[in-house]
Amino acid sequence: MDINIGIIGMGTVGTGVAEILLRQKKILTSRTGLNLRLKRVVDINWEKATGIDLSSVRRSSDAYDILEDKDIHIVVETIGGHEPAFSFISKAIKNKKHVVTANKALIASKGKELFELAEDNGVDLMFEASVGGGIPVIKGLREGLVANDIENIYGILNGTCNYILTKMHQEGLDFSDALKAAQERGFAEADPSLDIKGNDTAHKLTILAMLASSSFVELNSIFMEGITEISKLDIDFAKSFGYTIKLLAIYRVLNEGIDLRVHPTLVPSDHLLASVSNELNAIFVKSNFAGDTMFYGPGAGRRPTASAIVSDIVDLGRDMILQNGTRFSSRSIDTKSLARVVTLDNVSNRFYLRLYTYDAPGILAQISGILGEEKVSISSVLQLETHEKENYVPLVILTHKAPEKAMKRAIERIKELSFIRNDLVYLRLLDEL
Amino acid sequence: MDINIGIIGMGTVGTGVAEILLRQKKILTSRTGLNLRLKRVVDINWEKATGIDLSSVRRSSDAYDILEDKDIHIVVETIGGHEPAFSFISKAIKNKKHVVTANKALIASKGKELFELAEDNGVDLMFEASVGGGIPVIKGLREGLVANDIENIYGILNGTCNYILTKMHQEGLDFSDALKAAQERGFAEADPSLDIKGNDTAHKLTILAMLASSSFVELNSIFMEGITEISKLDIDFAKSFGYTIKLLAIYRVLNEGIDLRVHPTLVPSDHLLASVSNELNAIFVKSNFAGDTMFYGPGAGRRPTASAIVSDIVDLGRDMILQNGTRFSSRSIDTKSLARVVTLDNVSNRFYLRLYTYDAPGILAQISGILGEEKVSISSVLQLETHEKENYVPLVILTHKAPEKAMKRAIERIKELSFIRNDLVYLRLLDEL
Repeated sequence: MDINIGIIGMGTVGTGVAEILLRQKKILTSRTGLNLRLKRVVDINWEKATGIDLSSVRRSSDAYDILEDKDIHIVVETIGGHEPAFSFISKAIKNKKHVVTANKALIASKGKELFELAEDNGVDLMFEASVGGGIPVIKGLREGLVANDIENIYGILNGTCNYILTKMHQEGLDFSDALKAAQERGFAEADPSLDIKGNDTAHKLTILAMLASSSFVELNSIFMEGITEISKLDIDFAKSFGYTIKLLAIYRVLNEGIDLRVHPTLVPSDHLLASVSNELNAIFVKSNFAGDTMFYGPGAGRRPTASAIVSDIVDLGRDMILQNGTRFSSRSIDTKSLARVVTLDNVSNRFYLRLYTYDAPGILAQISGILGEEKVSISSVLQLETHEKENYVPLVILTHKAPEKAMKRAIERIKELSFIRNDLVYLRLLDEL
Repeated sequence: MDINIGIIGMGTVGTGVAEILLRQKKILTSRTGLNLRLKRVVDINWEKATGIDLSSVRRSSDAYDILEDKDIHIVVETIGGHEPAFSFISKAIKNKKHVVTANKALIASKGKELFELAEDNGVDLMFEASVGGGIPVIKGLREGLVANDIENIYGILNGTCNYILTKMHQEGLDFSDALKAAQERGFAEADPSLDIKGNDTAHKLTILAMLASSSFVELNSIFMEGITEISKLDIDFAKSFGYTIKLLAIYRVLNEGIDLRVHPTLVPSDHLLASVSNELNAIFVKSNFAGDTMFYGPGAGRRPTASAIVSDIVDLGRDMILQNGTRFSSRSIDTKSLARVVTLDNVSNRFYLRLYTYDAPGILAQISGILGEEKVSISSVLQLETHEKENYVPLVILTHKAPEKAMKRAIERIKELSFIRNDLVYLRLLDEL
């Protein structure tokens, strides 16, 4: 089935969506059975629409070329902000088109109107990309955890703030230097106030709260405090008490109602949320059946945000195909095709080797000689003294990357050395996660 | 629309599914528009079917009462193992019923046959609960990340092994004591060999690898090494090098094919996966657009597993309703109902208070006196010496839980004290995440 798509706004995110629809076309079709066809793209500024071949796509500067195109099923809105985004989305819905947006400010402030308009017109308004960028957290909340009462949500939802706080925590920067670092890395806008004052986090919390409570939530009912007053001193004190300061979006169900707030929060340093560093986002959810779950990943950026938008497009396409009576197999495994699996022997890893050797001269030379002959290169060595009678000393070697079969051959040869005890262990090491 | 459901196997997980279908009925109907009706449950042993009222449900000991019931749309298989589960699932599919299962061993070994049988019979075989328990990772992979090439997966997929390794790492237990602790806490079976030898992890990796590669994967093509040889010594050495040992399921796309393995792995201690402790599971996914994402939560247990099974049931129900031409609004926000949000003043928190006071006697008494009068109780205090000329010393106070308005009143009063500098800061603290 052909699904025709129009994108309004070819900035960073819109261009990313076009890139996926064009470059991932084959895998999308084979996984979903849908022919996702990018028919039109609209913008008045094409500076960011680089790196993709738009020759098969109609380009114009008038959003109504998409909004009035009867063939277009799904409109992607990626201009952001309130106007003209609100007018465009409203018009698309009135023209019976499904809409996909990443516009958290708009959903947070005009969600009620837009959802009702969509309901009245029998179309869907999808917004996976509005919270947590590439993290499928909207889907996780409303589909994956559909059976659950959502009790608490603790979210790190703004990459700029998390980057600043991480730099303050890990590198001892003060707020203004950390902000500068975030701006240099492209994680903070020239005017970062919507981020650092907490507004962006509050927008996203509004959306999560609507999903979790199944009711409408007013943006201005959220208590909001940004990170501008956080000093290096407080970061250090918090650390000494075993806490890490994070800007959290908090949703809690209390007897009296919902507790909704955005503020800098001391989180126990051994909690998983405290390990969410730099510009990354995470949403920690407590629910009555699934228990504690967490969704983690990039909260912004062209490619992650586009990934989320396309997952919404696919969901809409899947629903459309079902309504037309053509069954869509949600299963995406081609059982006719057997995966090509490599054997471990041919895979390279770093290794950890621990053995006990008799404490005598020249032994390390022999062991490292064997490793060298098998082309396994050593990255670090630790040999400890012993005061045990039997005079065996532990020796630990970390290697650089080497093929499993080379390491195996080396191990076999090392085991044959007369001065090695027979409890040698080797493990694989991953530092490129 | 009525969706009739039968559960075969009323052990721990089956009973959890029944519990959700009965207890969460109202929220499921309001969120999805579906009437999920538990019609029949079958088992030959009812010892574990406790804590729920099954009076509205037909009970019997013959699985064919469900398999041959023409009204039943969805069969939930929660007996586990190969037979009779395989025969029951096959029969259900042949009788044109959708099937939901948590049976990873069966999907990993007989997935090809069962998926093809489902395809031929126009029904779906769903298995969200087979990997990661309550974590919606199957949905995340095949729907949330649908637009992505999945490049790498690193999974902590077995709660027993992760619990054992965590105890060895954090408490210095040796393997056999940690295994005993896991058994006492109910995280390990009396015969734990399928867990600690890696088989269970390999089953789950097979399933993830099929989804990630969109092709069929043979269980026996996975290299597998368990945790039985891991000693406390190696845990300690790894720690001293900055690594934490985890049993990882690894999926990597190489030029030559797919690299699939299960083995104990040294993970950098500052990587998020190293912070996944105790019986918890996590699946770290690298994909070409969404980047690095992670799904975290409970990998087993009655309620989390049941939560995943019910999300599959809802998905099937949603597809059925669409095929019948009745549109289902996937949106689950009732815009007519405004959420009841409490004001922060009425919410209790723990607080962090940092101020500078003039270094003179009796000051701590006055500050703590004010806090006491406002019923804010102190949990710890840190007052540092200073050698600065101006003779102000920093004072940090952590409080127990107190209402915001009490803390605010105390702060206002403390600020008025003559010996307090005007850069007082207070933050909220969360230790019940």
